[in-house]
Amino acid sequence: MRFSLRYGSTIVHMGEGAIGGIADRIATHGKVLIVTGRRSARESGALGDATKLMERLGVTWELYDGVFPNPADRVVDGIADVIRDRGSEAVLAIGGGSVVDSAKFAAVVACSGGRAEDYLLGRRRPSCDLPVYAVNLTHGTGSEVDRYSVASIQERGLKIGIETTYPRESVDDPLYATSLSADHTRYTSIDALYHALESSTSTASNPMTVSLARDAASLVSRWLPAALRDPRDAEARMNLLYGAAIAGIAIDNSVTHIVHLLEHVLSGVNPGLPHGAGLAFLGPRCIRYTYAARPAEGAQVLRALDAGLMPIPEHAARAEDALRKFQEEVGIDGSLLDYGFSRDGLESLTSRAMEIVKEDAGLIPFDVKPEIVSDILSSALDR
Amino acid sequence: MRFSLRYGSTIVHMGEGAIGGIADRIATHGKVLIVTGRRSARESGALGDATKLMERLGVTWELYDGVFPNPADRVVDGIADVIRDRGSEAVLAIGGGSVVDSAKFAAVVACSGGRAEDYLLGRRRPSCDLPVYAVNLTHGTGSEVDRYSVASIQERGLKIGIETTYPRESVDDPLYATSLSADHTRYTSIDALYHALESSTSTASNPMTVSLARDAASLVSRWLPAALRDPRDAEARMNLLYGAAIAGIAIDNSVTHIVHLLEHVLSGVNPGLPHGAGLAFLGPRCIRYTYAARPAEGAQVLRALDAGLMPIPEHAARAEDALRKFQEEVGIDGSLLDYGFSRDGLESLTSRAMEIVKEDAGLIPFDVKPEIVSDILSSALDR
Repeated sequence: MRFSLRYGSTIVHMGEGAIGGIADRIATHGKVLIVTGRRSARESGALGDATKLMERLGVTWELYDGVFPNPADRVVDGIADVIRDRGSEAVLAIGGGSVVDSAKFAAVVACSGGRAEDYLLGRRRPSCDLPVYAVNLTHGTGSEVDRYSVASIQERGLKIGIETTYPRESVDDPLYATSLSADHTRYTSIDALYHALESSTSTASNPMTVSLARDAASLVSRWLPAALRDPRDAEARMNLLYGAAIAGIAIDNSVTHIVHLLEHVLSGVNPGLPHGAGLAFLGPRCIRYTYAARPAEGAQVLRALDAGLMPIPEHAARAEDALRKFQEEVGIDGSLLDYGFSRDGLESLTSRAMEIVKEDAGLIPFDVKPEIVSDILSSALDR
Repeated sequence: MRFSLRYGSTIVHMGEGAIGGIADRIATHGKVLIVTGRRSARESGALGDATKLMERLGVTWELYDGVFPNPADRVVDGIADVIRDRGSEAVLAIGGGSVVDSAKFAAVVACSGGRAEDYLLGRRRPSCDLPVYAVNLTHGTGSEVDRYSVASIQERGLKIGIETTYPRESVDDPLYATSLSADHTRYTSIDALYHALESSTSTASNPMTVSLARDAASLVSRWLPAALRDPRDAEARMNLLYGAAIAGIAIDNSVTHIVHLLEHVLSGVNPGLPHGAGLAFLGPRCIRYTYAARPAEGAQVLRALDAGLMPIPEHAARAEDALRKFQEEVGIDGSLLDYGFSRDGLESLTSRAMEIVKEDAGLIPFDVKPEIVSDILSSALDR
C-alpha cells in the first residue's frame, strides 16, 4: 500500500519506498542540510536512502547529526548557525519528533532571525522559513505534518511547544520504523494515542478532529500490539504511521492540553524521562477528568479500547480503567518513581505545574484546580 | 455551535457570527477588494456584515460584483486588472463556488502575471498570490478550503479545473445559507455528495479521504432533506456547510474524476446547465462503474444512503439505485433534455467527452471506453 496524504500545503508520502515522493521538490534545491540524531537515521537505512537520492539528483548535502531527545534551545540555535554558515537552501530532517521539531524550528530561526529562546518565550514570532522536508522514523509525534516544535530552555527547566512551520513534504516508510525498539514502539504510539484523546476533548475541538482522533485511537489499539509481537510487521507499522499522522492533524486543529502540559513540566525537570512514558504515567487519571467533562467525544474515541463506554460522565472512571488496562497490555509499567520523582516533591511539583497549566487553562475542558493536578501527579507516582 | 476547522494554513471559521473570526487577519491589510456575484452576497446579509467589519477595522474596501455562474477566463482577468489598478492588498470573496474560484484565480493572476487562459491551458503556473479570504454562501464546492479554481474558456467551450491557491481564512455562517433557494440548496449539496463519492474512489484516494467522504455523505443524506423542509433550519445548514468543507478537503487530497470531468464537458457546451444538475443527471450511472471498481470505498461512503450495501462489485447496480432514489427524494428531476442536449448529439458528445476524459484517465478507477461514456451520457438523457 502506498498513498499520499495532503494537509493543505503539506504532503505526506506513505508506504514502502515513499522517499521517492520527495524527489521532484528536493531537486529544486542546490544545497540541503540533513539533520539527524546520533543513530536511528543510520540504523533505519533512511539516511543512506536520502543521500543516495540526493546524489542521484545532483543535490549537494551536508550533515548535522547532533540532535538528542528532548532537545534544548541551543541545539536549535546550533542548527540555525550551520544553515546560515553553509548557505543551506533547505533542511531535510530524518528522525523522530525531536529531530523534526528541531529542524523546523531551526529553519524558522535561520530565516526569521534571533535565537530559539526568543521564540520559546514569545518575544519573537516566525516571519519566514526555509523549506523543510521530513523523513519520519517514529509513529508518534505528528511533527511530520503539524506546525509545532517543542524545545526546552534547559537552565530554566522549561519545555515549551510553539508554532514554527509545516514541513513541505514528509516521508512515512514503514520499513524504517521496523527498527524501532519495543520501548520506542510503545512510547511513540502512546504519544499518538494521547494526541487523539486530548485534541478531541480540548475546548478548541471540532468534528473533524473527533473523527480523525477516533480513527487514530482505533488504529493504535489494533496495531500497536501487532507491532510489539512482530517488530518487522510492515502492515502494523504502516497503520501506526498513518494513525500518528492523522492524530498530528488532529492536534494541529485542536491542540493537546492537560496530559501534554503536565508531561512537559515533568520532562522539563528531568529530560531523561521519555515523553511517551510521562504521558502514560499521567494519562489515565487525566482522561478521567477529561471524560467527565466531554463524555460524548471521550466515548467516541475511547470505544476503541472499551466498546461498552457510554457518553456519560459516570463512565469517566471506566474510561480511566480502559486506558490503564490497554497500557498494561502493551507492556507499559513503572511510574514516575523510576525517574527520580518522589512523593516528597509532590507539593512543589504541583505548584510548579499550576504555574504552567494556568497559562493554557482555557484549552482544558474542566476547571483545573491544584487538588486535581495533585491527584493526577500522585496517580503517576503509583506503581 | 461555533468552531474553527484547520486544513494546514487555511482556517475555516464555522457558525453563526463566524465572520468575526477573520477580523485579526483582515485588519493587517490596508485595502481589500471584495468580489461577489450580482445578488447573493447582498441578499444573504454577508456583504453588509463584511463592509461593517472592515469599516470598524479601518480597512478600505472596493467592490467588484460582476461574477456570474460558470465564469469564463475573462471574468478572472477582469478581477485581476482591478486588483492591479487599485493596488488591492487582499481579496475577500463573498459567494458560492464561482465567486470564490474566480477570486482565488484572480489573486494568482494579479501576482504571478499573464492571463487566466495561460494557466487554464497549462502554459503558466502560479508563482505567488495575494491573500484571499472567502465568505462562503453555499454548501457545495469546497472552494473555501481547497486549492482549486474552475473556469471556462468560452470561445472553445472548455471548462477546466486547475490549482490556484488556498484561501487564508474562510467563513461558513449557516445564517447566510438560509437564503439559498431550494434548487441551490439541492444542487450545491449534490456537488458535495459527488465530491465525497469521487474522491474516495479515485486512484489518488487515501484512508483520510475515505473517512471524510463517509462523514460528508452521511451529513448530506441526513441534513439535505431537513434543509429542504425548512430552509431556515440553521442546524441543517451548519451540518451541510461542514459536510461540504470536509468533502472539499477530500477532493483536495484525492480529486474528482468521471462525474466532474463529464459535467465539465456538458457545462462547457451549455454554461446554463447548473453544475449540480449536471452531476445529478450523470452521477448514478457513473457511480455504478466506480462502485464495481472500488466496492470497499464505495460501500463505506454509500451506506449512508443504503445501509445494506456490501463491498462487492455485484452491488454496483444497487448503489446506482440508491443514489437515484435519494436524488428523487430530494426533488431532483428532469434530464439533459431540459438543457438543449438530445440523443441526436450523443455520438459527437461522446467523442468530445473522450477527448477530455482521456487526459485524466489515470485518476478514474476503471478503464474508460467510449461505450461506457456513451452509456453514461445516454442515462443522463433519460427522463
